[in-house]
Amino acid sequence: MKSLDHLYTQLTRPTSAKLVLLVLDGLGDLAGKEEGYLTPLEAASTPHLDDLTQDSALGRMNPVAPGITPGNGPGQLGLFGYDPVEYQIGRGVIEALGLGLELKPGDLAARANFCTLDADGIVSDRRAGRIDSNHCERLCALLSEQIKRIDDIDVIFRSGRGHRFVVVFRGPGLDGPLTDSDPHCDGRSVGRVEPVQADCEGAKKAVAILAKFNERALSILASDSKANGVLMRGIAARPNLPTFEERYRLRASALAVHPLYQGLGQLVGMRTEHGLEGIESQFRRYLDTYEKYDYFFIHYRYTGIFGAEGQFEAKKKAIEDLDAALPVLLSKRPDVLAITGDHSSPCLVQGHSWHPQPVLLNSPFSGSDKLDRFTETTANLGSLGVFDAKYLIRLMQANARMLGKFGA
Amino acid sequence: MKSLDHLYTQLTRPTSAKLVLLVLDGLGDLAGKEEGYLTPLEAASTPHLDDLTQDSALGRMNPVAPGITPGNGPGQLGLFGYDPVEYQIGRGVIEALGLGLELKPGDLAARANFCTLDADGIVSDRRAGRIDSNHCERLCALLSEQIKRIDDIDVIFRSGRGHRFVVVFRGPGLDGPLTDSDPHCDGRSVGRVEPVQADCEGAKKAVAILAKFNERALSILASDSKANGVLMRGIAARPNLPTFEERYRLRASALAVHPLYQGLGQLVGMRTEHGLEGIESQFRRYLDTYEKYDYFFIHYRYTGIFGAEGQFEAKKKAIEDLDAALPVLLSKRPDVLAITGDHSSPCLVQGHSWHPQPVLLNSPFSGSDKLDRFTETTANLGSLGVFDAKYLIRLMQANARMLGKFGA
Repeated sequence: MKSLDHLYTQLTRPTSAKLVLLVLDGLGDLAGKEEGYLTPLEAASTPHLDDLTQDSALGRMNPVAPGITPGNGPGQLGLFGYDPVEYQIGRGVIEALGLGLELKPGDLAARANFCTLDADGIVSDRRAGRIDSNHCERLCALLSEQIKRIDDIDVIFRSGRGHRFVVVFRGPGLDGPLTDSDPHCDGRSVGRVEPVQADCEGAKKAVAILAKFNERALSILASDSKANGVLMRGIAARPNLPTFEERYRLRASALAVHPLYQGLGQLVGMRTEHGLEGIESQFRRYLDTYEKYDYFFIHYRYTGIFGAEGQFEAKKKAIEDLDAALPVLLSKRPDVLAITGDHSSPCLVQGHSWHPQPVLLNSPFSGSDKLDRFTETTANLGSLGVFDAKYLIRLMQANARMLGKFGA
Repeated sequence: MKSLDHLYTQLTRPTSAKLVLLVLDGLGDLAGKEEGYLTPLEAASTPHLDDLTQDSALGRMNPVAPGITPGNGPGQLGLFGYDPVEYQIGRGVIEALGLGLELKPGDLAARANFCTLDADGIVSDRRAGRIDSNHCERLCALLSEQIKRIDDIDVIFRSGRGHRFVVVFRGPGLDGPLTDSDPHCDGRSVGRVEPVQADCEGAKKAVAILAKFNERALSILASDSKANGVLMRGIAARPNLPTFEERYRLRASALAVHPLYQGLGQLVGMRTEHGLEGIESQFRRYLDTYEKYDYFFIHYRYTGIFGAEGQFEAKKKAIEDLDAALPVLLSKRPDVLAITGDHSSPCLVQGHSWHPQPVLLNSPFSGSDKLDRFTETTANLGSLGVFDAKYLIRLMQANARMLGKFGA
């Protein structure tokens, strides 16, 4: 893969083309008996997608590899052309991005939650009696005020839902991953945080900082009857990814409403836009910033939410809403437009799945597969076949005439 | 591939699901002018397969890689999820398994045949005048009686068809592969057996044992006018494969009539069932042992035999017989059912071929590709696309909900 990546880089040349990746979160679904053998995409009325399909190439993509169900991070990285097995993102980092924290190179992030410790230091309740988000926010504010810095490391807090929060450690020489302090069940003592790779100097420093952090946090929380301890999981450094611009020679913009997708874009060096309120505003921002960027990642969230909840009608409606807004995007038609999911979230599965998501690729050079609709079933018949998602960006580059001829 | 394998292993968790791999040997075929552009699978009447197809995903699989025609070993290993290029099985081992010899770790197996040597020790007839199987069996019994052991190595004989037999060497410190003593044409002297890898200590010991074996065999056979010598080929150690249970956390059973397929199952640690007499009895044994295992490999032989003989009608009939027995299997429907071949054996080719075999995958989570029959041509339209056979087990695991989510 490394050498093929190198070849792609060698062949890449900038052009003036505009490329758009439109991701309908969790788009792919299953045709099952229950819904008359229709998927939400098949059941939906999608006149604008249908029009586009006429002049497009279709196919399906494995998000990672056959049978593998990706989390949001690996699913999205694959679409950005980064092999998700080669470039893995720690859970703490995903959580931090999801709560809207901008991570800098070298940052170490941990998922954390408040817990209840008994007099002997045993975890009697991993969720601190499921304290509510307000309580959690107050405790985070308290910690934030009293633990701003440990040695040469800044400490940043962000509260989440219920008992959950995130801690980011920022400063020189830190690295991960570290083992969890969360014992993952009640009745045990808090785990020792250790480097996952024994010879990692940065992880050793991180262990020392986290020990001091824990000591200070315990003394600050001592007066809280429920939430008197902190457990940490998925402690990992922000991965050092080659930027999108380095890899593809594309100035890229992430137009996402949910902070996680803004954050995933930032991880590969995309600029993020703020103040977006829904798919139409995202499309309008594309129009407004058309000259500033070459590549626009537009993330639509609702298909994924309703798929994960198993709500067929709502997922179908979310697709129809997207379709209705599509003319805004197409009013300034990008040279290359790819429409797909970051993974499938079939209503039947009520969560992410391994099923290949359908993909539509439209450009003056995409050709037409002469299919009249964009669905899972028609995508099976397309000229793109079934391929790994990490190649989508290369097909987009080719359609943008950005990849020169290989060899003579 | 290694690291992807590692990822699959990390994600694997046991469930209570039952998985069945039903292999119709040499199933895939070609639609040619001679038979009205129908394959045997298309020409056959298969009401039960048709029913199943309605709720299944279809695709085609390369047994190894595009254009590669596999022997029985690589074809089957691929279906078991072992990369056939990484895990190679010596011919002596395949021959021993095919004759029903159970091989233990460390065993060294050789294909052998009786030959005629002239007074100068030159091979005058590599096949010893094509002696019949009875003659061969008598000679093997004679050798077996007089060569039970050489140093600390047990010697085991099993006669085959005509002049062919197998010798297994069992004891400490043996390894292969070794070069052939068979000169592969008449008029030459018997070849020197040597280690293929010069620095392999186990192979050096094996060479010494085989020299002693040859000396003793020659003196025992001296009185036979036709068969007074032994030639060996494909001398190889039983490969040390990670077991099916280690790799997939599945207790596996091989329900095969032919000893080779029982043996291939044993190589990956499957339990074998004996006393099976045909596909219906294999299906019944599945029902009877349903609780004992998680994965059942069921091998149906006749499609392969008739394909290799170019008998279109007989192959079609064999498919219809299988279809007629299918309700027995489906009376206790497995959670995941895959139906495919181990390779194609098109009537036109009269032997194994490289053409991708069709595959049907049925589970509550397979979705429906809305195809009404399971054939080579409909499989081209399926959501599974064309993929390498080694991924089938991973798709089966995913459909059994045995693979956790990758990343957050």
